[in-house]
Amino acid sequence: MKRVLLLMLSMLIAIAIHAQPARQAVIDEFTSFLAIPNVASDTANIERNADVVVAMFAKRGIEAKRLRVDGAPSLVVADLPAPGAKRTVVFYAHYDGQPVDLKQWTNPPWSPVIRDGRIWARSAGDDKAAIIAMLAALDAGVHPHVNLKFVFEGEEEAGSPHLAAYLAKYADALRGDVWMLCDGPVHQSRRMLLFFGARGVTDLELTVYGPIKGLHDGHYGNWVPNPIVMLTHLIDSMRDDDGHILIDGFYDDVVHTDMPDAPNVEDDLKKEFAIGRTEGKSLYEQILLPALNVRGIASGRIGAQASNTINTEATASIDFRLVPDETPESVQLRVERHIAKLGYFIVHDAPDAVTRAAHARVARLVWDKSGYPPARMSADAPVSREVIDIVTAAIGAKPVILPSLGGSIPMYLFQGTNHTPVIGLPIANHDDNQHAADENLRLQNLWDGIEVYKALFAGMK
Amino acid sequence: MKRVLLLMLSMLIAIAIHAQPARQAVIDEFTSFLAIPNVASDTANIERNADVVVAMFAKRGIEAKRLRVDGAPSLVVADLPAPGAKRTVVFYAHYDGQPVDLKQWTNPPWSPVIRDGRIWARSAGDDKAAIIAMLAALDAGVHPHVNLKFVFEGEEEAGSPHLAAYLAKYADALRGDVWMLCDGPVHQSRRMLLFFGARGVTDLELTVYGPIKGLHDGHYGNWVPNPIVMLTHLIDSMRDDDGHILIDGFYDDVVHTDMPDAPNVEDDLKKEFAIGRTEGKSLYEQILLPALNVRGIASGRIGAQASNTINTEATASIDFRLVPDETPESVQLRVERHIAKLGYFIVHDAPDAVTRAAHARVARLVWDKSGYPPARMSADAPVSREVIDIVTAAIGAKPVILPSLGGSIPMYLFQGTNHTPVIGLPIANHDDNQHAADENLRLQNLWDGIEVYKALFAGMK
Repeated sequence: MKRVLLLMLSMLIAIAIHAQPARQAVIDEFTSFLAIPNVASDTANIERNADVVVAMFAKRGIEAKRLRVDGAPSLVVADLPAPGAKRTVVFYAHYDGQPVDLKQWTNPPWSPVIRDGRIWARSAGDDKAAIIAMLAALDAGVHPHVNLKFVFEGEEEAGSPHLAAYLAKYADALRGDVWMLCDGPVHQSRRMLLFFGARGVTDLELTVYGPIKGLHDGHYGNWVPNPIVMLTHLIDSMRDDDGHILIDGFYDDVVHTDMPDAPNVEDDLKKEFAIGRTEGKSLYEQILLPALNVRGIASGRIGAQASNTINTEATASIDFRLVPDETPESVQLRVERHIAKLGYFIVHDAPDAVTRAAHARVARLVWDKSGYPPARMSADAPVSREVIDIVTAAIGAKPVILPSLGGSIPMYLFQGTNHTPVIGLPIANHDDNQHAADENLRLQNLWDGIEVYKALFAGMK
Repeated sequence: MKRVLLLMLSMLIAIAIHAQPARQAVIDEFTSFLAIPNVASDTANIERNADVVVAMFAKRGIEAKRLRVDGAPSLVVADLPAPGAKRTVVFYAHYDGQPVDLKQWTNPPWSPVIRDGRIWARSAGDDKAAIIAMLAALDAGVHPHVNLKFVFEGEEEAGSPHLAAYLAKYADALRGDVWMLCDGPVHQSRRMLLFFGARGVTDLELTVYGPIKGLHDGHYGNWVPNPIVMLTHLIDSMRDDDGHILIDGFYDDVVHTDMPDAPNVEDDLKKEFAIGRTEGKSLYEQILLPALNVRGIASGRIGAQASNTINTEATASIDFRLVPDETPESVQLRVERHIAKLGYFIVHDAPDAVTRAAHARVARLVWDKSGYPPARMSADAPVSREVIDIVTAAIGAKPVILPSLGGSIPMYLFQGTNHTPVIGLPIANHDDNQHAADENLRLQNLWDGIEVYKALFAGMK
């Protein structure tokens, strides 16, 4: 008995000794990858990221292809065919990251550091972690029963403006029977998460106009229209302080969804975010409803640089999150109607002085062209159940099942016209500061992610 | 007859020949003065401005003194006593200017250029023109019957935070029987203007808080409080889109003032400013009422740098213009009560995480310490009539008489406890882009200003 225990102990030590260098290699590869700036608009660097992805596959004996569409970062595609496979399962991730506001970062965004059990860098969580975890899972020597396809995009954070073009141009190369979208965070309880839908999105840059030149607010204020006050009233006419959208008929297209059976993490989140209230209903209810959020607002200056000026214009950057059966077009139409009904003359380009003088109120609406509709599939479909079972077995616990992610991924594109199943499988921690400063990945999420990918690669039939 | 005409013609030519170099000398002196950066916080440069003011007096044989109060720019004072004078008339102006946003200027703000009959530079209108015009008027060799005193301040645009200290510390040196405040613009009809009051002012920097770190607005938006939307609702709760202030009891302290008999220039201004509507009532009615204007607002980012983030805070820079009998204290009290009544926990310093988590809504209110009350005097007082008559005679037309300037000047300080008469006499054109980019002075206003000062220097008894 003693000898068996000793043998087991020495085996465990051997595994630990072996495991450390393996994990270190994963971290080294991750660190090099994170060190490359990856804002989608930074063409030179974004292609360096694509180079590294291709090289990482090559290191594993897999030839990755760079698909090209004019004006878009490379789409990197790698195939691992399985003899006799009946299906192709596609694993999607993206290698680009959100723009950064350098002065808000503790460490520079592309100088990864490890601290407090996390790796800190832009895209550590969103979404280079998924790419690194898949590659590490391949290193485990799995023997898939399905064809595996990896598709890594370079402009997801820019709204995937060329993804449709890629899917059209390379219909054959990008054909799959199931898409696994490996993006976003796991559940806030730190339990693994599967999602079967995502909200759509459409972004609006809304500008209203005051006088054609800045004017002294003592001499002209409260006679000359104040564009900031026009904008605040316009925003408030569209959304209350509780997240409810006030635009006529905005909820008409919304299909009811049952609340998910998921852990209530609201008290923990309120503590984590240091907030004393929340907007609207429960967190789950909110992500299953459409949303209007103001993500930026600017006019004049604040602080020591403030001056007593009535400004010439005020701008808000707004994003709408859409749920079935809303579309960007249906939302845009309702918003423009709402603003017109408030007496605004709507333009889409910068208005000239004649236009500004001719109308009591002028609003410029610039809709980002990269918006897209929401998508959903049933969590009870056979493939959904298959994935849920494999993940459950891999982590020894049932993952949290959400009908939709709160965020947006262009799932509808992968679904296509023939309703290809698309399932979301994120691995990053929820507290990864995704899209913000000090983005990070909790290393345990990386190790868990590798296990889940290994199980899916080996287990899907 | 012919000879008389010829003689007159040759005299006119002589005057013109003489006038050109004289005017050129004024312009040269003005240009050198405008070339010195003059933001009040730029201590080194602001003192260079004071040096130049002293030197310009010295050139005219007048010894100007630099009064000093700790932490304040020099107050430049010059005296021109008249034998047997019964009164001292003080002419006030300021040599500092508003901060600049360099990228908005056609020419750099401190590189004066002459174009289209105007001189373009920061403080061309507000308020170096007055100083140059007074000095040029002295060059005409007037023989005053009253003691003249010149007082030029270096931090008016910063809200004159040390003016009270100056007036207290140098009570004797700054004693006057009448103060003429030479600041602000003339009437929009280009007619000379006298004003017998000014609105008070108090500035507020208002910040409300969202989560303690930026959060993905897809995953958390419309559950986590959006500070921009909190701020827009807070602003809208305080002021409607028509300039009317909605804060409880805000108009209780307001004393009724009869409308002035002044030209209606609203149609011209609407054209000039390219606006298709105005806020509230008439221009004159509005400047005789209190005002709440938002002069800056900021949170997150707009345009290409916008990111899908619920921001940690949102800030508005607000200024209140006050009329009799409001005071900064009475206004601040009503504003704080209003915000508290909306459920906000009010702080004056940056709140920590504990404070943010403990309250549903937290608002930080920072009141600028340089606010001050409004002031008025009667336009029918003997000294008012004397000044009106002298100006009328000098320009050959009755000036526009306003009970109050829309802007703020700390007239109340000069009035003091013994109600010293204080009269406003601006010379700059109304369209001088005061406080904004491309500030300018119409040269005709400079020549007219010189005539008016000459008349007052010589005519006051």
